[in-house]
Amino acid sequence: MNPKPHRTRQNNPDGMRNHVLDVAADLFQANGYHATSINDLLQKTRLSGGALHHHFPTKKSIGLAVIKERVAPAVRETWIDPIRTAVSLRKGVASVFADIIAGLEARGAVSGCPLNNLALELSRHDADFRKAIDAIFSEWRAAMTESISRTDGGARLDKTKRSDAAAFIISVYSGAMALAKSSQTASALRSAADILSKWLRDHHLESGHKTARA
Amino acid sequence: MNPKPHRTRQNNPDGMRNHVLDVAADLFQANGYHATSINDLLQKTRLSGGALHHHFPTKKSIGLAVIKERVAPAVRETWIDPIRTAVSLRKGVASVFADIIAGLEARGAVSGCPLNNLALELSRHDADFRKAIDAIFSEWRAAMTESISRTDGGARLDKTKRSDAAAFIISVYSGAMALAKSSQTASALRSAADILSKWLRDHHLESGHKTARA
Repeated sequence: MNPKPHRTRQNNPDGMRNHVLDVAADLFQANGYHATSINDLLQKTRLSGGALHHHFPTKKSIGLAVIKERVAPAVRETWIDPIRTAVSLRKGVASVFADIIAGLEARGAVSGCPLNNLALELSRHDADFRKAIDAIFSEWRAAMTESISRTDGGARLDKTKRSDAAAFIISVYSGAMALAKSSQTASALRSAADILSKWLRDHHLESGHKTARA
Repeated sequence: MNPKPHRTRQNNPDGMRNHVLDVAADLFQANGYHATSINDLLQKTRLSGGALHHHFPTKKSIGLAVIKERVAPAVRETWIDPIRTAVSLRKGVASVFADIIAGLEARGAVSGCPLNNLALELSRHDADFRKAIDAIFSEWRAAMTESISRTDGGARLDKTKRSDAAAFIISVYSGAMALAKSSQTASALRSAADILSKWLRDHHLESGHKTARA
């Protein structure tokens, strides 16, 4: 019924590699990096130790690949792309929070932000992990800074203040998600989104129909 | 020179218990709960397995005791007490951030907030951990809500909005600390403190010399 499974697998090394990364990303997100053993990965992927080793010689290489090939794309998909294409920064931020809250409520559990989870677990553990994680925060912050610069209020800020405002938005989200995770409810995200939306409006970090001057 | 060390230890069970909790709190903060093994604890405490087991039959019991007897007091000492005794909420928040930033810079490394570190690592792992962690966030938030209610702007807010503002302040700090940890610099905390201070001022969440009415 399912002949030559090994040959099929070996003929599709990318598929096998992607399968390992999908499983590892799910386990790291649910339980954390250290709480996930190589045995957990072998059981869930149904690969042999040799096959896993062929793609990822160490657990660390799986961790780095998950950060670069799963967590970074998730941040792009959840935050960076919607903000980039939103009609206004304020509406974009509101819609990102709303989508994340809807996702949490559909799942009925709050696992938190994959980037923040790994950042807090691994940043002090290993310099390579820290650099890979920090690169995603930097990309996220640069994209938010760019969106801020297109708003009326942002155009009046210098480069440092725009970047500070971007970090502030990311901080509000990251911290509210920590509260959401510990309470297992989305309420801290909902109230943070509301306060952040007013903050963006009060600072004219909304839309950029008019050209503003300092 | 140091006679009967075993008898001394056995005569001071509280001292031994406290020693285990100090060592465990340091290791959890540096490396995380799961990355810390019972063997690490035995090596660092220089206790026998039997002596450790006498005080803490499981690793989980050490984790829960660290949360309740080390992390909770740290949050009280760092945040709750200074805010409670500050001349104004705004000055209190500014001074808490300044003290935390000074501490990070003195240590030359950012290990992050012990509460947020364990919250992100353990909230999905175990219901007892989650409840113990959430109880600290709730105490912190209640203390901030109380301070907010004593400000002119806070007196005009209903109970829910005060609590939302408290969660917002905690979120900004927690998220900025995640950025600080991943960049291993205090800059995100410094800019977040600055923006938060202006936000508190703009919403009259500053001091409460006057009695305000809705």
